[in-house]
Amino acid sequence: MATQRILDFLATRRPAGPCLVVDLDVVSDNFHAFERALPSSKIYYAVKANPAPEILRLLAGLGSSFDTASVAEIEMAMDAGAPAERISFGNTIKKERDIARAFELGVRLFAVDCVEEVEKVSRAAPGAQVFCRVLTDGEGAEWPLSRKFGCVPAMAIDVLRHAHALGLDAYGVSFHVGSQQTDLSAWDKALGDAKAVFATLAEEGIVLRMVNMGGGFPTRYLKDVPTAQAYGEAIFGALSRHFGNRLPETIIEPGRGMVGNAGVIKSEVVLISRKADNDNVRWVYLDIGKFGGLAETMDEAIRYPIVTPHDGGEVAPCVLAGPTCDSADVMYEKTPYPLPLSLTIGDEVLIEGTGAYTTTYSAVAFNGFEPLRSYVI
Amino acid sequence: MATQRILDFLATRRPAGPCLVVDLDVVSDNFHAFERALPSSKIYYAVKANPAPEILRLLAGLGSSFDTASVAEIEMAMDAGAPAERISFGNTIKKERDIARAFELGVRLFAVDCVEEVEKVSRAAPGAQVFCRVLTDGEGAEWPLSRKFGCVPAMAIDVLRHAHALGLDAYGVSFHVGSQQTDLSAWDKALGDAKAVFATLAEEGIVLRMVNMGGGFPTRYLKDVPTAQAYGEAIFGALSRHFGNRLPETIIEPGRGMVGNAGVIKSEVVLISRKADNDNVRWVYLDIGKFGGLAETMDEAIRYPIVTPHDGGEVAPCVLAGPTCDSADVMYEKTPYPLPLSLTIGDEVLIEGTGAYTTTYSAVAFNGFEPLRSYVI
Repeated sequence: MATQRILDFLATRRPAGPCLVVDLDVVSDNFHAFERALPSSKIYYAVKANPAPEILRLLAGLGSSFDTASVAEIEMAMDAGAPAERISFGNTIKKERDIARAFELGVRLFAVDCVEEVEKVSRAAPGAQVFCRVLTDGEGAEWPLSRKFGCVPAMAIDVLRHAHALGLDAYGVSFHVGSQQTDLSAWDKALGDAKAVFATLAEEGIVLRMVNMGGGFPTRYLKDVPTAQAYGEAIFGALSRHFGNRLPETIIEPGRGMVGNAGVIKSEVVLISRKADNDNVRWVYLDIGKFGGLAETMDEAIRYPIVTPHDGGEVAPCVLAGPTCDSADVMYEKTPYPLPLSLTIGDEVLIEGTGAYTTTYSAVAFNGFEPLRSYVI
Repeated sequence: MATQRILDFLATRRPAGPCLVVDLDVVSDNFHAFERALPSSKIYYAVKANPAPEILRLLAGLGSSFDTASVAEIEMAMDAGAPAERISFGNTIKKERDIARAFELGVRLFAVDCVEEVEKVSRAAPGAQVFCRVLTDGEGAEWPLSRKFGCVPAMAIDVLRHAHALGLDAYGVSFHVGSQQTDLSAWDKALGDAKAVFATLAEEGIVLRMVNMGGGFPTRYLKDVPTAQAYGEAIFGALSRHFGNRLPETIIEPGRGMVGNAGVIKSEVVLISRKADNDNVRWVYLDIGKFGGLAETMDEAIRYPIVTPHDGGEVAPCVLAGPTCDSADVMYEKTPYPLPLSLTIGDEVLIEGTGAYTTTYSAVAFNGFEPLRSYVI
């Protein structure tokens, strides 16, 4: 997944220290693949995945809309050229003053998952469109999805009814099937729940019009994942099954699926050692770890492909750890990572599929180490 | 643990957004308590716990030495007034060019835990003092201690012998009993291992002189912890038991124990909701979470005391979560946190015991949220 452009950049520029390099051509290809796969859905890029200004400018230019988590992200999207009507304030947890600020900036689309949040929106953004997030079980997803966002469908009906009563535009329902979701049927159950909310409220004269199908589109790490086309077909099939020929407007919010495979982290092997003479695993320490950008290795959730200068030779299992004095800064230990026996201190390795959820997760200065540098080319 | 000075600062300055406030008087008291508890040990403050310049300047002035994890931390300690001879490069995972840079700055004390690292030090810092870290099991510690640092005692003998052969000063042994260690006997086993390494090498004419007893000294969170005095007595007892009247020089490296109880985070309740009408826990969302500085709530390891304006009233269990759109940003869920029933959106809460391992763990800008601000008073 390291494109020739990325390899050339690293070879010519030779940046010191660990860094992420993102290839905009790949982002552009991904955007078009989503457009082709779900031609009737609007694409809201999940800014949190990677808010690099170059990425936001590219996507704004391609006509993308933006899913944002904070006022700062709204401002970044607008700075990149996105008009306010293409921005969704998709965080269900918002301070009332932040809702007011977003409204002032022109944003008219807000996520909610409880009546308390509806009340904030009705006061700070009168008349705005709201969609209510419904809980899904997240089965089949590789990055854990807790119950943090959303409410049960029965409660979503109350939430949207309350929004309608307070003069808001009860616009629709959202869900998220879980990040790095590779089970194509995951969308089916969630769309069934969404349809039930639509139907109940329609009986009361409240006509929802939109389903926000969230993200969850995967990046290829070590295992193959279905294509955007396969996702598109499965989702469109489920939509038709539940909504018949009265299809709602739909939104998708790819983050990882848009930028994950566009980025590669260059890192250096700092140390290779064993803990005892008879140790059957080597400990390989890189100059980047859990606190330097690889936070998604938490609980060994995301397993990145790693390219070394010795690939093809004999491999043996390694514990992979970061450079800090924190004992929790270990990436892969429960399931050791096979790396070449000839790997050496000082070798450069490429950690692929790291375009999403790396730079902004990076700690400010833990152990005095700089945050992950990023080059977008 | 919020001192009057901290409360006064918050009341008069009313800083916006979440922030950490650290009271230097408490740091100073902690330093003196360690001095009194272990009068014959040198105190090396673990800079990574909180590298705020005001804290480093205070401790440098009080005569503290410094345990550092990177060249940046070495430079911070020197900028604060610490001479190079009071600085230990305590990270066992170092790039050779960083060892060289430290040596150039005057640092002469380095941690190692394998022959590979010894070789780097011998090339980049000829003649320097090295101590070898020995593995302990970390039992009784609240923050998980993996096998990331150290080697088995048998291997430590080889490592120090190799250092001696390469012209380095084989100075001693280090260990770490695990962070937030409340079992006073934990030091005994480790000191026994250290003594065995001393004895074996002495037979070969290699005379070690120092035991670095690491950190592990706790902060009081929700449960009482032994006093510095109690730690001192237990450790001195174990030292005498193993080394008799030929006590080695000793070093301690308090981090959490030096600054943990000196800091308080002020946060705001952003949302309180339920996921279903019959939900028996409330979800309480704060404006700070796992990615904004409370990383040590990972696996619910550290449980901070939380002060609310409604303390004393009836409480009920809550899931406590952060403000980001990341489903992993949940602090306490497996063991819900009891909070007052009258807690309200917009309330300010104080998260106590947060002086250590918070600001620098904070993500650069995840979800567009600023890193944790810090005021040292």
